[in-house]
Amino acid sequence: MNQKVAVIGTGLVGRAWSIVFARAGHEVALYDPADGAVESALALIEASLPDLEAKELLRGTTAGDLRARLSQADDLAAALAGVAHVQENAPERVEVKRELWADLDRLAPPDAVLASSTSAIPASAFTEPLAGRRRCLVAHPINPPHLVPLVELVPAPWTDAEVVTRTRDLMKSVGQAPITLKREIDGFIANRLQVALMEEGYRLVEDGVCDVADVDTAISEGIGMRWAFIGPYEVGDLNAPGGIRDYCQRFANMFHEISKTQTEVRTRTPEFLDKVEAQRRQVLAADKLIERGQWRDRRLMEMAVWKNRKVRD
Amino acid sequence: MNQKVAVIGTGLVGRAWSIVFARAGHEVALYDPADGAVESALALIEASLPDLEAKELLRGTTAGDLRARLSQADDLAAALAGVAHVQENAPERVEVKRELWADLDRLAPPDAVLASSTSAIPASAFTEPLAGRRRCLVAHPINPPHLVPLVELVPAPWTDAEVVTRTRDLMKSVGQAPITLKREIDGFIANRLQVALMEEGYRLVEDGVCDVADVDTAISEGIGMRWAFIGPYEVGDLNAPGGIRDYCQRFANMFHEISKTQTEVRTRTPEFLDKVEAQRRQVLAADKLIERGQWRDRRLMEMAVWKNRKVRD
Repeated sequence: MNQKVAVIGTGLVGRAWSIVFARAGHEVALYDPADGAVESALALIEASLPDLEAKELLRGTTAGDLRARLSQADDLAAALAGVAHVQENAPERVEVKRELWADLDRLAPPDAVLASSTSAIPASAFTEPLAGRRRCLVAHPINPPHLVPLVELVPAPWTDAEVVTRTRDLMKSVGQAPITLKREIDGFIANRLQVALMEEGYRLVEDGVCDVADVDTAISEGIGMRWAFIGPYEVGDLNAPGGIRDYCQRFANMFHEISKTQTEVRTRTPEFLDKVEAQRRQVLAADKLIERGQWRDRRLMEMAVWKNRKVRD
Repeated sequence: MNQKVAVIGTGLVGRAWSIVFARAGHEVALYDPADGAVESALALIEASLPDLEAKELLRGTTAGDLRARLSQADDLAAALAGVAHVQENAPERVEVKRELWADLDRLAPPDAVLASSTSAIPASAFTEPLAGRRRCLVAHPINPPHLVPLVELVPAPWTDAEVVTRTRDLMKSVGQAPITLKREIDGFIANRLQVALMEEGYRLVEDGVCDVADVDTAISEGIGMRWAFIGPYEVGDLNAPGGIRDYCQRFANMFHEISKTQTEVRTRTPEFLDKVEAQRRQVLAADKLIERGQWRDRRLMEMAVWKNRKVRD
């Protein structure tokens, strides 16, 4: 059933969310308080659609039909009128969110779900005083959500279970891959996993075990190849004849010996940053960062195409 | 320049190494002390070649030409005669390696490099007393090496730098992606990174933050999609306008706050194993483990095809 969704804040994240909701058939109202921000976002989205359509990344809709579902809202009230779901993508400052969310809760229909794309601020930090705080939660995407399906749903202590379920169903119905946290925790799930791995990558270089490029190769030409289609528990489950229990028992000693040496909390020293930057700049000059970022974006799009093919197999 | 390579131990790892060396043009002598092991390995390799050829995973050689480069050695001395490189894939028990490596060092030509595929035992544990210990090192692949390019080169304290360089050059020339550790360390690089991430995945489930499937989705539908083509340092380098230094400084607080909460060394309790196994068996019945493993192998092959295309872009 097609509904109206409001996308509040139309930077990189808001633009991608607009594509996600509109390609699934929803009407999307875009609002951003900055002058010209929505016009600019609509132009950027429109320019990106033909390529997405050609790569079959629009769920069978056409660029034209998708574009027709996007509209610019003149003010917040207009954006929120009649919506079922609000996806907020404002700057990551708690005082900005507090002020904005008071308005969202005041202006949105009472049965609309209010979701924040924040990667770092728990919903409890900006929804506590709201009359409608039970319909508020975090729905944190990985950039850009029209190519990367993961969405982390993080309820505040006062979020209704039914609101979580409804958001989960909406996200699934538009093709995303929602996961649900049972409580708020710093970094949610994805960033916690990423930090754990990267901290070890930092230690290995700081301690002179290997260079920056070696850590990157270990992932991108090694263990990262499986992680693009199966997660770590499934990797373990399939890597021992008796499944995950057998895996955990078989490698208990290895895990224990290694994890004992991964407990030191470190901060990045100036010497470490100099070393890492020097090694990266040997591989990639500073004036090539933007170009390489565009290459990464193209590769990520091809990865999304590859993963879609899997689903059809 | 085509050379002779000996593959000692012809299980899963040895078979894959045989394909790696033979598809690059080298003559490969296979030896395994178990009755019928080499015949069985050759039959399995031969059966796998047409599919690999069809998917352009044989570096332009044909299944027939590749097969013609593989030969069964009747004994260890015959396998080692005239070789430039030995790749040992014996069981992961230090006493087995000690005995075998004494023979390898005694029988192989003095200028041959002796490399072990071990994932867990440092070369210093089984090469110390050898006359030729300077030509010994670990060359640890990720399974299966004919699809996953990473090879971890881990010299013992007495390994010649020139031997490391020569092995690195050989691995690159056959299409692998070697990384070099500057010293021995438990778990080498890939398993240390994997353990750091998985320990956090275990903690999150044990502490009731989320379920097993949520951790898996966070990787396979989220951060794992980038890691299949760029490593964590490059991810950071491209994720802040000023590159990796800017990234580390910008997210210093997030890394610090999260890593402070990831220092506890845990072992898997029976309750945890029950919980994890129950959740995995809901997703995948025990009698489907083998079938799903075959699916993973096919997906990994498609991933290898996808990554090869990148290189050609």
